[in-house]
Amino acid sequence: METFIVEKDNPELKDSILIEGLPGVGLVGKIAVDYLISELKAKKFADLYSPYMPHQALIKGKSELELIKNEFYYYKGKKDMIFLAGEAQAVDIFGHYEIASKVLDYVEKYDVKSIFTLGGFATKEAGDRVFGAVTDPEMVKEYDNLGITFMKDGSIVGAAGLLLGIGKLRGIKGTCLLGECPGYLVSPKAAKAVLKVVTEIFGIRISFKKLDERVKKTEEFLKNIKRLEGTEEEKIKEDYIG
Amino acid sequence: METFIVEKDNPELKDSILIEGLPGVGLVGKIAVDYLISELKAKKFADLYSPYMPHQALIKGKSELELIKNEFYYYKGKKDMIFLAGEAQAVDIFGHYEIASKVLDYVEKYDVKSIFTLGGFATKEAGDRVFGAVTDPEMVKEYDNLGITFMKDGSIVGAAGLLLGIGKLRGIKGTCLLGECPGYLVSPKAAKAVLKVVTEIFGIRISFKKLDERVKKTEEFLKNIKRLEGTEEEKIKEDYIG
Amino acid sequence: METFIVEKDNPELKDSILIEGLPGVGLVGKIAVDYLISELKAKKFADLYSPYMPHQALIKGKSELELIKNEFYYYKGKKDMIFLAGEAQAVDIFGHYEIASKVLDYVEKYDVKSIFTLGGFATKEAGDRVFGAVTDPEMVKEYDNLGITFMKDGSIVGAAGLLLGIGKLRGIKGTCLLGECPGYLVSPKAAKAVLKVVTEIFGIRISFKKLDERVKKTEEFLKNIKRLEGTEEEKIKEDYIG
Amino acid sequence: METFIVEKDNPELKDSILIEGLPGVGLVGKIAVDYLISELKAKKFADLYSPYMPHQALIKGKSELELIKNEFYYYKGKKDMIFLAGEAQAVDIFGHYEIASKVLDYVEKYDVKSIFTLGGFATKEAGDRVFGAVTDPEMVKEYDNLGITFMKDGSIVGAAGLLLGIGKLRGIKGTCLLGECPGYLVSPKAAKAVLKVVTEIFGIRISFKKLDERVKKTEEFLKNIKRLEGTEEEKIKEDYIG
Repeated sequence: METFIVEKDNPELKDSILIEGLPGVGLVGKIAVDYLISELKAKKFADLYSPYMPHQALIKGKSELELIKNEFYYYKGKKDMIFLAGEAQAVDIFGHYEIASKVLDYVEKYDVKSIFTLGGFATKEAGDRVFGAVTDPEMVKEYDNLGITFMKDGSIVGAAGLLLGIGKLRGIKGTCLLGECPGYLVSPKAAKAVLKVVTEIFGIRISFKKLDERVKKTEEFLKNIKRLEGTEEEKIKEDYIG
Repeated sequence: METFIVEKDNPELKDSILIEGLPGVGLVGKIAVDYLISELKAKKFADLYSPYMPHQALIKGKSELELIKNEFYYYKGKKDMIFLAGEAQAVDIFGHYEIASKVLDYVEKYDVKSIFTLGGFATKEAGDRVFGAVTDPEMVKEYDNLGITFMKDGSIVGAAGLLLGIGKLRGIKGTCLLGECPGYLVSPKAAKAVLKVVTEIFGIRISFKKLDERVKKTEEFLKNIKRLEGTEEEKIKEDYIG
Repeated sequence: METFIVEKDNPELKDSILIEGLPGVGLVGKIAVDYLISELKAKKFADLYSPYMPHQALIKGKSELELIKNEFYYYKGKKDMIFLAGEAQAVDIFGHYEIASKVLDYVEKYDVKSIFTLGGFATKEAGDRVFGAVTDPEMVKEYDNLGITFMKDGSIVGAAGLLLGIGKLRGIKGTCLLGECPGYLVSPKAAKAVLKVVTEIFGIRISFKKLDERVKKTEEFLKNIKRLEGTEEEKIKEDYIG
Repeated sequence: METFIVEKDNPELKDSILIEGLPGVGLVGKIAVDYLISELKAKKFADLYSPYMPHQALIKGKSELELIKNEFYYYKGKKDMIFLAGEAQAVDIFGHYEIASKVLDYVEKYDVKSIFTLGGFATKEAGDRVFGAVTDPEMVKEYDNLGITFMKDGSIVGAAGLLLGIGKLRGIKGTCLLGECPGYLVSPKAAKAVLKVVTEIFGIRISFKKLDERVKKTEEFLKNIKRLEGTEEEKIKEDYIG
C-alpha cells in the first residue's frame, strides 16, 4: 500500500501558504492549526492516508470508525491558505520522509509558495517565547519586531523539519515557529503565542476567547495539582516531624 | 517478495460478508471465526502468505511443515460469507496496512458489501459485554436490541481496525464486535458472546456445545489456579502467623 | 539496492538437492554444511549479497575486506547437490522472506527437486537426537530407520523454515534436520549427528576425523570450564565454612 | 521518496579517488575528511539526501534550516579526489546499503578507481596506531613503511565497510584506515594519525596547525576533567578519612 490522498474538493488557490500543525511537543502545533481552522471556518478538501501512520481506526461521535489520517483545509483570505492537520505523524523515519514528500507533491498543485510549520519547543524555564528558524537567512529581517527568538543551532525533527527541508529543495520558502513549553504537558498557552505571531504575519483577525478558556483550564488544572502536591507534602512533613 | 494469495477454489459469491477473526486480544476473534468455520463446515478457497508475517514454517499433524499463513473460507447460507482466519497478523505497521489492503483487493472480487471484524476488548471488570463500532453511524440503529455496547472513543488496532478503515474508503460497510475479556487469558467465553451477536445478526443457527465445553474447561482451569493460590496464601499466612 | 547474486560458474545440475546450513542455533547447520563442502571438495559457483544482511565488510586472511555474503557450492556425486553456506542470515523478517525467495528463484534454474535445511534444536537435556520435519507427511516413511525424532508441533524460524515453506508452495519437497544441542554453545557434536543422517540418506561417504577432533576440543573446553567451576565452588565453600 | 542527489557542478575528474569521512567512532573519519576539504579548499559539487537519514532539518548560521545531508567535494591535485562528507550516516541497515550503492552509482560517473574510507577504531589502550584493511591483499605491500597495522579479522561496519565491500564487487580498489581512539570521545588526535597516512600516500602537503590546536584543546579538556576527578577523589577521601 502506498500513501494516498482522497480529494473531496478542488479549490482554486493562488500563491498560497501551507501551515502545518500535526501532533508533536506539547501538541502546540496541532492546537494552533486546529484553532485556526475552526476560527477561520476553513474548508476540508482532502484526506491523506498512509501505511506509515499508526495501524488504527479511530472511533468518533456515534461510534463511527475511521482510518487514522491527515487532513487538508483551505481558507481564502488576504492570502490563500492551506492547513495540514491530523491525528498522527509517521511512525518511522522513512515514513516521515515519504509523507512529507507526498504532502509537498500535493500542495504544489495549489501553488504553495511558502510553508509555515508550527510546533512546541520544550525548555526548562518554559517561558512564553516563540522560537523561529527559516530556510533563507534573508527572511529573518521580514520577521523583525515580531518578538521571535531565532535559533542558531539545533534541529527540527519530524514533519515540521522535513516539510521545510524538502520544500526548500523545491524552491519553497519555509518558516518554523515553535512555542516555548514544558514539553510534558499539552500547552495551549504556547499555541496561543505561536498564533499571535502567525496572525500578525498574515494580518488575520481571530478571537482568542475559546483558546484563552483552554489556557485558563490548563492553568487551573496545574494549580490544583500543585495544591494537592502541597497538601501532600505538608502531610508528609507532619508525618515525619510531628 | 510480495504478499501473495494462492487460490484453491473460485466460489460464486454475491453480496457477500467478510468476517475476520485473526489472533489478537484473548484470541477472541480467532476462536470465534475458527468455531464458525468448523460449525458451518465452511470451505477453504485461498491462502495468503506475506513477508510481513512471522518468518516461520509451522509444524502440524504428522510432522508436516507449512509456511505461516492466513486463510479464506466461504459459506453459502442465507448470506454468502467469507471468513478470514489464520495463524498470525502482520509483524509491523507497514505490513498491517499491506496485508489489509491485499485482503480487500482480493475479497472485492467476491462482491463483499459488508465487513465484520471480531476481537477481544480487555477491561478490568472483564464482564460479558460485547463492544461495537461501525463505519456509518446509521448502522447503530440496525443493531438495536442486540445488547451491543457502542464505543464513543478509542481506537481499533491491527487487522480489525484497518480492514474496516480501508474498507470504508472503498465504500464497504464495516462493523467491529469485541468481546469483553481480561486480556491476559485466552477467552472462549468472550468469543461465545461475540458469536451470539453475529449469529443473531445473520440468523445463523449453530450448536455452542463444543464452545461451551471449552468455556467450562477454561473456568475450571482458572478455579484450580485460584484454589492453588488460596492454599498458597493460607500456607504463607500460617508460616508468618503460626 | 536489491538482493543480488554474482555467478562465477554455471554448472550443469539435474534433479538436484539444495542443502542449507547458515548460522543459527549452536551454529549446527553452518558447521555441518561447511564440513560437507570441505570434505566433498564442493565448488563455489555463486555469491549472494543483500541489503537485508548485516551492514558489514568482513576482514579475512591478509587483511582482505569483503562484503558479508551467502555462498552457493555444488557437488556432482550420486546426486547433484547445491550447498547454501554463509556468514549471516537476514537481519529482519522481511529480509528473511526476501532472501529465501531469491535463493529459490536462483536454485530452481539448477533443477532443485528437494531441499534439506540443517540446524540446531536447543533442549534442556541436550541429548544426541536429530529432530526432523517434512513438507509432505508421506516422506516420514522414507526416513524410517534413520533414528530421526519427527516433531509434531512447534515452528522452524528463519532460513531453515522459509526455504522449506516457500519451496513447498513451488512444488519442491523439503526436509528439516535439527541436531539436539544446549543452544548457548557452538555444537559440532550436533552437527555430526545431523551429518550422519544426511550422509546416510544420500549414501555419501566422508571422513569424520576433523569433525571428531573439533567435538573433542569442545568437550575438553567444557570439562575445563566445569573443573574450574568446581575448584571455584570448593574454594568458596572453604571460604565460608573454614 | 528515494535517496537523491542534487548536483551543483559537474567537474571533469579522471582516474579519481573517493575519500569518505562520515560521522562514526570518535568522529575520526568526519574530522579527517572535513579537515582535508578545508585545507585543500576542495569544492562542493553535489548533495545527497535520503529517507534513510535522520528525519531532521538542521539549523545553521543565521537561523537557516536545511535538510540533513551528505556532501560531495572535489579537489584536483596530483590525483583527482572526491570527498564524501556529511552530518549523518543511514539510520538503519537497509538504508546503509541503499546510500552506499547510490554513492557508488554517482561517483562512478567521475571515474573513481580507488576508495579510501576513514574512521576510528576503539581500543582499550587507545594508542596512536592506524589500522588498515584492503580489498585486495596485494595492496598491503603498496602501503609498506607507512606504519599501518593491518587487521587480520573483524569487520568494518557502516559506510566505511559497505563502500569498500560493494565497490570491490564493481571492480574498485578499496582501503580502510582507522585511527586508534578510546571510542567514547571525539578524537582529533586519531584523525591526525589517519591524515598523516593519507597525505603520505598521495603526496599531499597540508598544514596540521589547526588540527594540532584542536588536539591540544581536547587534551586540556581531558586533563581538566581528570584534575577535577582527582580533587573530587581527594575530597571524598578527606570526608571519609578525616
